[in-house]
Amino acid sequence: MSEIPYKTYLHESEMPKAWLNIKGFMKNKPEPLLNPATMKPCTKEDLTPVFCDKLVDQELNVTDKYIDIPKPILDFYKLYRPSPLVRAYGLEKALDTPAEIYYKFEGNNTSGSHKLNSAAAQIYYAKEQGLKAVTTETGAGQWGTALAMAGAAFDMPVKVYMVKVSYEQKPFRRNVMNVYGAQVVASPSDTTNAGRKILAEHPGTNGSLGCAISEAVEAALCDPEHNTRYVLGSVLDQVLLHQSVIGLETKAALDKLGVKPDIIVGCAGGGSNLGGLISPFMAEKLEGKSDVRIIAVEPASCPSFTRGQYRYDFCDTAKTTPLAKMYTLGCDFIPSANHAGGLRYHGMSPVLSKLYDDKYMEAKSYTQTEVFDAAIKFARIEGTLPAPESSHAIKGAIDAALECKAKGEKKIIVFGLTGTGYFDMKAYDEFLGGRMSDYIPTDAEINIK
Amino acid sequence: MSEIPYKTYLHESEMPKAWLNIKGFMKNKPEPLLNPATMKPCTKEDLTPVFCDKLVDQELNVTDKYIDIPKPILDFYKLYRPSPLVRAYGLEKALDTPAEIYYKFEGNNTSGSHKLNSAAAQIYYAKEQGLKAVTTETGAGQWGTALAMAGAAFDMPVKVYMVKVSYEQKPFRRNVMNVYGAQVVASPSDTTNAGRKILAEHPGTNGSLGCAISEAVEAALCDPEHNTRYVLGSVLDQVLLHQSVIGLETKAALDKLGVKPDIIVGCAGGGSNLGGLISPFMAEKLEGKSDVRIIAVEPASCPSFTRGQYRYDFCDTAKTTPLAKMYTLGCDFIPSANHAGGLRYHGMSPVLSKLYDDKYMEAKSYTQTEVFDAAIKFARIEGTLPAPESSHAIKGAIDAALECKAKGEKKIIVFGLTGTGYFDMKAYDEFLGGRMSDYIPTDAEINIK
Repeated sequence: MSEIPYKTYLHESEMPKAWLNIKGFMKNKPEPLLNPATMKPCTKEDLTPVFCDKLVDQELNVTDKYIDIPKPILDFYKLYRPSPLVRAYGLEKALDTPAEIYYKFEGNNTSGSHKLNSAAAQIYYAKEQGLKAVTTETGAGQWGTALAMAGAAFDMPVKVYMVKVSYEQKPFRRNVMNVYGAQVVASPSDTTNAGRKILAEHPGTNGSLGCAISEAVEAALCDPEHNTRYVLGSVLDQVLLHQSVIGLETKAALDKLGVKPDIIVGCAGGGSNLGGLISPFMAEKLEGKSDVRIIAVEPASCPSFTRGQYRYDFCDTAKTTPLAKMYTLGCDFIPSANHAGGLRYHGMSPVLSKLYDDKYMEAKSYTQTEVFDAAIKFARIEGTLPAPESSHAIKGAIDAALECKAKGEKKIIVFGLTGTGYFDMKAYDEFLGGRMSDYIPTDAEINIK
Repeated sequence: MSEIPYKTYLHESEMPKAWLNIKGFMKNKPEPLLNPATMKPCTKEDLTPVFCDKLVDQELNVTDKYIDIPKPILDFYKLYRPSPLVRAYGLEKALDTPAEIYYKFEGNNTSGSHKLNSAAAQIYYAKEQGLKAVTTETGAGQWGTALAMAGAAFDMPVKVYMVKVSYEQKPFRRNVMNVYGAQVVASPSDTTNAGRKILAEHPGTNGSLGCAISEAVEAALCDPEHNTRYVLGSVLDQVLLHQSVIGLETKAALDKLGVKPDIIVGCAGGGSNLGGLISPFMAEKLEGKSDVRIIAVEPASCPSFTRGQYRYDFCDTAKTTPLAKMYTLGCDFIPSANHAGGLRYHGMSPVLSKLYDDKYMEAKSYTQTEVFDAAIKFARIEGTLPAPESSHAIKGAIDAALECKAKGEKKIIVFGLTGTGYFDMKAYDEFLGGRMSDYIPTDAEINIK
């Protein structure tokens, strides 16, 4: 056995002090957000009614390579970071591969995922701006939980519009948010015009993420004191920025071990975890200092990279957001009920879309039964019960390791294990009981303009 | 801010290589288990039909101070250990106390608690003995989950009798065990005589831990090939031995930081977590090298230390086990529905009972509403959602810190945070909704002979 430990934790003093802004390293910048009313690039003035001022600055910042992490956020990170970089000795042995496999595990906090990295930042800037509350939406509940935790720490009221079907079927998720003091509203609700309209038209509706977003944005905009803002957990450039802490820690730990990755694998929904994980490695690649392979893994049921088009599209179903140039399946695309709820998004981070279009990264897709098969193998060998989203990266890493085995190549594979599957047991049960099916959308279903 | 980091992780090479057997340090040994048929001390021959041979050796070993941890168990520990020792800066500040507060967090593994430390050991010895399966019972499910995880890692079939009410109300817990390949049976079941008898007498019963134990023991004993054994997650001396890894890591981390605890607080149900946490500190105290205060915290609804009697009693309700000399509320005592399921046990570890009777440790009890109030305070400040069991220790530590504040004493307080509360959200919801009540048993209800 090698001298590399199973788990590597950075010392607190080795934690990153600045986030990495990947846009600062890109010669070909991503296309700007467009105001759909004018079709001109969004200005700070366009965005600050909805988002916190400092976060808008970060969203529009395409030049700075690094942005200092404010001390209160660093202190909050110390509550649950650094996260471990794990050498998957068991998985390597089970696969009988010459490859070395590492994973960065972001699930060791109560929210159960990497979402907390951006929640802390967004809540902090809201507090700094003197706001009285933030609003957001949540589907499965990980983002809402993360935001509630950060809200409790920074004493910032949080109002979460939770898709009604989750609100009713996942009361425990809602209860966790309540423990942290967040107000959780089943969406659609009668607290907004958007909610009331939907309820009038579809009285029995279970809600949708699109509707919950509309309610959360409206609740922020319609605060008569204009002292509330909306926050979002993925897709945006600012979220990738905050998530760069994942990749920076990963690189610092690998550097300590004297290990240089050949292949990096991450799951991709809106792109925040993947963008964060790859950030310092992509920066080196953009500077011509590295030829690391970067592989985005997405569900075959929602294949924005592998089957989408790179074009301007709305970020939401209701077409209320700015237009983003991104890989998209069309904002009207309704993903099938894949259990990796965090990957069910029609679009993709504009930054990652540009990097993919410029061939700095690859993408592949898997069906959910392939993914759950890998998840259960991983759980039994490595101990940790992975989230379905994260299990896409596990499947990608396993396939990369088997490719190494076939070719007799001793490569270094690093993947992102973004979270735990505690709240996804219904899906595991369906898989184990043989009741899970796969769905691959037809060409007609995607690319709806 | 001090130079002590928020979290201290030992390096893998600093992890304990041997368990600490507290009995080896005790001049006054705990009283032996008695065979109820003969009223003579249990021999190895009495115990090996039920338990693995090596585990019986450990159970009866009152002389060795340390017992080497076999390498396969050390390797398994590396999957989720070392666990962090956390400096509770936030809690200190919120309490405005001169005391320093540290906690050892055992919840960073999928089973969600310290139970995995003994599960791994017990499964390993079963494998080494060439057994074909182990049986156990589980109530809330943490022990069953831990055993399933260890079973998957060591390729040892695990059969879990899960109390029917939990089986039905906590399907997710059951599903997690299924993911790890364990067979989970709702108890009472028609697979054992004990189960069939109960079902015939009480057709609509929800089951009980006592009944599930009876079924699990019978299933082990009645294997026609005599190749199955029963395993238990707490109370036994062997379990305290395995859990000593908690205390040994805690002490190693504190030594690294140059910190010496004045007060150690742990929750106490069967006693395994507390016994493990205090082991090296108690050893020093027994050797006259330390005068550390050790405080056991238990629920007011099940107060074995604070209101029980120190006498021989059965370990189970059905009176099928050996007799143990311990603090007990009487084996017929039925604890009220306190949500800290892991602390609802009528007795207490014989080792800890002896140490308590010899005044090496103190005990105090709290009502569950006091405990949940502390739990929510802790979650909002420190981030981690604690298990109700662990929250007893939080409450004890907070009170010790407030005592330091009142007296102006800068003491070092260390407590054990044994697990997470993900599967206890119903209880949190009841507390937040003002629907949780306290129950303190009358004198007539306890000490039933």
